Amino acid sequence: MKTPRGGYDGKGVRVVRAADEADDWLAAGPVLAEELVDFRRELAQLVARRPSGQLAVWPLAETVQRDGVCAEVTAPAPDGERLAAEARRIAETVAEGLDVTGVLAVELFETADGRLLVNELAMRPHNSGHWTIDGAVTSQFEQHLRAVLDLPLGDPSRLAPVSVMVNVLGGPPGAEVPDRYPAAFAAQPGVKFHAYGKDSRPGRKVGHVTATGDDADEVLGRARAAAGFFDS
Amino acid sequence: MKTPRGGYDGKGVRVVRAADEADDWLAAGPVLAEELVDFRRELAQLVARRPSGQLAVWPLAETVQRDGVCAEVTAPAPDGERLAAEARRIAETVAEGLDVTGVLAVELFETADGRLLVNELAMRPHNSGHWTIDGAVTSQFEQHLRAVLDLPLGDPSRLAPVSVMVNVLGGPPGAEVPDRYPAAFAAQPGVKFHAYGKDSRPGRKVGHVTATGDDADEVLGRARAAAGFFDS
Repeated sequence: MKTPRGGYDGKGVRVVRAADEADDWLAAGPVLAEELVDFRRELAQLVARRPSGQLAVWPLAETVQRDGVCAEVTAPAPDGERLAAEARRIAETVAEGLDVTGVLAVELFETADGRLLVNELAMRPHNSGHWTIDGAVTSQFEQHLRAVLDLPLGDPSRLAPVSVMVNVLGGPPGAEVPDRYPAAFAAQPGVKFHAYGKDSRPGRKVGHVTATGDDADEVLGRARAAAGFFDS
Repeated sequence: MKTPRGGYDGKGVRVVRAADEADDWLAAGPVLAEELVDFRRELAQLVARRPSGQLAVWPLAETVQRDGVCAEVTAPAPDGERLAAEARRIAETVAEGLDVTGVLAVELFETADGRLLVNELAMRPHNSGHWTIDGAVTSQFEQHLRAVLDLPLGDPSRLAPVSVMVNVLGGPPGAEVPDRYPAAFAAQPGVKFHAYGKDSRPGRKVGHVTATGDDADEVLGRARAAAGFFDS
């Protein structure tokens, strides 16, 4: 069950076996009830659309959530070629059907039996697209501005064979991101570090890192190692 | 002959055959007199140095000037492998010898007989390094901040086999850069456009474009075509 408003990062979502497990939410107003999907993994298809109709679709990405919060994104999604055309079709259909202007992230489940189901829509630049800042010819932020201004969209192609983004979550006070820069930069000179300038609170997204390269395992290892410097 | 201060973009430089051709400059104070070099082409070696001594050297670039103003930069320099080690040695020697903090551009002549000579030094992020924004893991601007803050330097490796930057010069009033975006973006979706928000004056650097890719001729063609949309 999902609350119809205010949900993000796993907040406003509850897995229930019987209706009375959501009595408190139901007393407050309507809720969404959805089938619990037996999914193999989560994917995200980022698309941009400008008012005049032009669409640009980035490579399909795989997303990994921990405790309902996006933890890692790999683009292109490993073993994703067989899903790319269907993911693109879904994202373009949603963007056109809802007359979207700007960037739209379509979060998808790949089910145990190999289908793609839409999980959630985000009508904006999205955490699943942060890798595009360092890993694509046109970032989701530049593309969003182009789209909103109804300018021709930029090339969404990837710059490197693999990009991996890992989120940095806040820790207890005293574990501020910039304090960790000297050790992190020295260990990972090729990783791009992004700090949001937010106050650090446990579990809050306060930054992310992106690694790019040729080998999926090597890139994932570097991104995780870089983000690890900010673990509390 | 060169004026000792205030020179840039070919200003303050004059080719003379006899001293009396610089009488007006000599009357105003000392000038620099240098041998006229028979050079084959111009190159630029960008380097960053932090106070604690760490150095980072980007790929050697070739620069093309028109009317004394930088017009195009290609990185890595075509047929530059044979010069790369010597260019690196020169840049590192200058940066260490002058105790440089931050980014240093060493402008070089490749002479007709194959030597590298230092033409000019720029102790800052430099036009010859703008390609690094879109074409290198670490841009000259990020690197300059890292260096000034004495943080470990980032990886200066190129992101693509070839990057070409072409400057956009101002034209007469009415030829403002943003007016040309729709046509330029539509024709060149993979080129990165940078406008400086400066008033347009004939010959003034008001922006640049960068193309990246695998094939030198193709990349150069795209960069020139993109910049061509801003010709007056």
